[in-house]
Amino acid sequence: MPEITGHTRVFAILADPITQVKAPQGLNRIMAERGVDGVMVPLHVAAADLATVLAGLRAVQSFGGAIITVPHKTAIVPLLDRVSEAARLVGAVNAVRREADGRLVGEILDGAGFVAGLRAAGHELLGRSAYLAGAGGAANAIAFALAEAGVSRLTVHNRTAGRVEDLFARLRRLAPDLPLALGSPDPAGHDLVVNATSLGLRPDDALPLDPAGLAPDQLVAEIIMQPAETPLLTEAAARGCRTHPGLPMLEGQLALMADFLGMRP
Amino acid sequence: MPEITGHTRVFAILADPITQVKAPQGLNRIMAERGVDGVMVPLHVAAADLATVLAGLRAVQSFGGAIITVPHKTAIVPLLDRVSEAARLVGAVNAVRREADGRLVGEILDGAGFVAGLRAAGHELLGRSAYLAGAGGAANAIAFALAEAGVSRLTVHNRTAGRVEDLFARLRRLAPDLPLALGSPDPAGHDLVVNATSLGLRPDDALPLDPAGLAPDQLVAEIIMQPAETPLLTEAAARGCRTHPGLPMLEGQLALMADFLGMRP
Repeated sequence: MPEITGHTRVFAILADPITQVKAPQGLNRIMAERGVDGVMVPLHVAAADLATVLAGLRAVQSFGGAIITVPHKTAIVPLLDRVSEAARLVGAVNAVRREADGRLVGEILDGAGFVAGLRAAGHELLGRSAYLAGAGGAANAIAFALAEAGVSRLTVHNRTAGRVEDLFARLRRLAPDLPLALGSPDPAGHDLVVNATSLGLRPDDALPLDPAGLAPDQLVAEIIMQPAETPLLTEAAARGCRTHPGLPMLEGQLALMADFLGMRP
Repeated sequence: MPEITGHTRVFAILADPITQVKAPQGLNRIMAERGVDGVMVPLHVAAADLATVLAGLRAVQSFGGAIITVPHKTAIVPLLDRVSEAARLVGAVNAVRREADGRLVGEILDGAGFVAGLRAAGHELLGRSAYLAGAGGAANAIAFALAEAGVSRLTVHNRTAGRVEDLFARLRRLAPDLPLALGSPDPAGHDLVVNATSLGLRPDDALPLDPAGLAPDQLVAEIIMQPAETPLLTEAAARGCRTHPGLPMLEGQLALMADFLGMRP
């Protein structure tokens, strides 16, 4: 990494927990490659403190912006001055840019990054059926990206069904012909199975779905980056499924994030 | 610098302007030498935003603390949960540590650093007469350190005389026998002449004192670090004075700061 001086622009990632984040490594590498005098640091921020921390960062003139991750992606939306159309529809943000006047602008790059990561691994989505566990910020972003990528139908399972119905209402505005179904914990009968919950981040988490419904013709994908092999991926591999870990989603969107955050020399 | 990960502890320097600060270079070097997984970044914070930014940093669990410099050293005192006895007497803070529970503790290391820097350059203070320009945070810290170092008398010049009287009232509690005098812009008749104002930071600043009063038997010292040679030091050198730049004050206190901020492996 280049030396940090009084001229260095500061970027952050906001998360809770924080130790598993990979964005500082990725974006500090990209900034070094691009010759940008900037640094990304990890800020451990509890959900209850998000508004306070954001107000502080808004007032820091050398602050360029932040990556936003669990548990802040949805909660941050009303705290920003402006969000993109995609972020508004998804109801979540995973990148915030600080403009020179202090305004904070949000964007969601999760979904595009997830699809780009699948494609880079050789997995095409057009015409495939998809099962999604979760209806939070990341799940919303992935649902919209799966619809855009042309899946044949989409099933969403979430502990709180109301959040799924809310997601479907917004999805129908963008993709009125896409068959949508409220799912159960059973992922059987779908080509693609995606965990977009945070279950698997902690060692004692429950599985996000019932692994008995997994079969060898399925591709099982994660959004969790650490551990790289979650209990779900272990179960899926044991049942003969192809698996796709969480890291490619971040890899897929690092360049998109750097562009959005204005990381230019 | 070592790679920044989700485990890295974040430190900051708060200043306005920011580009001239040298603490990130110094403390990132010390942390690397000590094997500390931490990083110091420059936060450009206007005076009016200090309370907001501090409230935000207090809520960041991976934030370890900050170096505080112009213009925040005095204003920050009432915003902290606890300050050292030295900082209370000086009425200023230049280092803030964040405790695990979020409490912010302030310390002042300017004065000790300034005296350590002079001594490292071979300048003894015991029995010497001293002239100090300024009565802000740094000037207060240096006045207390000069009194502790045993100067024979201390003259302080400041645009606002009320601030000097306030400083003297507090100094007398610590050093009741030290002769104190309210100065004019003329530094004549003192062995040591110190600029502890921020005049000289910007190219169009006025001089902090009248250089016509400088003579070859005087040592003229700066607290400004960039530019290394301020207009005052140029004038002093032209008049045959020995000069002492601002950087050694920081060098003198970098290790003290690292210790106070808990920069241990």
